[in-house]
Amino acid sequence: MKCMADLCVIPMGEGVSVRNEVAACERILQRFPIETHLHAYGTNLYGDWDDVFAAIKACHEELHQAGVVRLTSTIKVGTRTDKDQTPDEKRRVVEDLLNEGR
Amino acid sequence: MKCMADLCVIPMGEGVSVRNEVAACERILQRFPIETHLHAYGTNLYGDWDDVFAAIKACHEELHQAGVVRLTSTIKVGTRTDKDQTPDEKRRVVEDLLNEGR
Amino acid sequence: MKCMADLCVIPMGEGVSVRNEVAACERILQRFPIETHLHAYGTNLYGDWDDVFAAIKACHEELHQAGVVRLTSTIKVGTRTDKDQTPDEKRRVVEDLLNEGR
Amino acid sequence: MKCMADLCVIPMGEGVSVRNEVAACERILQRFPIETHLHAYGTNLYGDWDDVFAAIKACHEELHQAGVVRLTSTIKVGTRTDKDQTPDEKRRVVEDLLNEGR
Repeated sequence: MKCMADLCVIPMGEGVSVRNEVAACERILQRFPIETHLHAYGTNLYGDWDDVFAAIKACHEELHQAGVVRLTSTIKVGTRTDKDQTPDEKRRVVEDLLNEGR
Repeated sequence: MKCMADLCVIPMGEGVSVRNEVAACERILQRFPIETHLHAYGTNLYGDWDDVFAAIKACHEELHQAGVVRLTSTIKVGTRTDKDQTPDEKRRVVEDLLNEGR
Repeated sequence: MKCMADLCVIPMGEGVSVRNEVAACERILQRFPIETHLHAYGTNLYGDWDDVFAAIKACHEELHQAGVVRLTSTIKVGTRTDKDQTPDEKRRVVEDLLNEGR
Repeated sequence: MKCMADLCVIPMGEGVSVRNEVAACERILQRFPIETHLHAYGTNLYGDWDDVFAAIKACHEELHQAGVVRLTSTIKVGTRTDKDQTPDEKRRVVEDLLNEGR
């Protein structure tokens, strides 16, 4: 089962700036056989369900091992049986509609 | 690794009323060795990370098998290394603070 | 426009325990003419769109005034034109279906 | 109060394909004095709190007026008192850290 996901990992109790933890997550995610696209409030993930969620679990496990005491993540995940659509295709479909309308 | 999670599964293209799909999800979740608490905009889940995410995956897989073409879920998940706190304890801590303040 | 919402406010950089900030939010939310139901991973809110979002804005503003430097909230919000359903009704509909199935 | 937000609007009961509704939302959002960046699972928003939430409310109101019966949105919103950071700056900070590490 393929899925599209969106992940935002928030370290709590690590101070106001969390850029190091966010960059550590990106490096962890990139080790997995999934597509990743960083945006300003999270990261789009695309691949097999098991790979996507193994990657998310690794973020929690490895940040805890690195000393982060508490983490809370927000995840969106979508699956569909009618077609397989990559994040780029999904975004482009909407952008094309927007351009047509101009 | 224990986690507290919150799951809201949304079937798309199944009409405006999704009560049957939501009830089907509850029955699926209850088969797993995790705590579940239904609320008006989702379900609190508590247990081992792998059990919690196996339960969430089963919701997507089994709803698709039942004919739902598209699903999008919103998940929050929290982990911590300092203590193990159940959903009831977590809620009670805040309720106690609110009662003290009265 | 009525809405059902779910709010989870996360203070960042305030240490690992955020119970005081969560309790402060509950007190702020209860000042507004909306229904609130605390659960283990957030609070269900129900009322007019403008009241619900004024309450959420007040949580951010007043926690900042109290010295919290950074906040990130996750919000779900649902609206529908076919009927008006309270959080209790929404939860009961699913619970009734679950009980029928037993 | 400035905020960074992330919005994902989901029409329910409108069929499996929701590209027209997503494009309609983008056009609505772009009428407001806020920054918007479409990604594969939502849209980053940046601006004054009141403008950002007026834009989100307009999406719900205008999609309902266009005949969509039910909508559920997932919103993340962040505020901070220590500095003002645009979505581009926020993303670049993490990308710079990732590039340094190579």
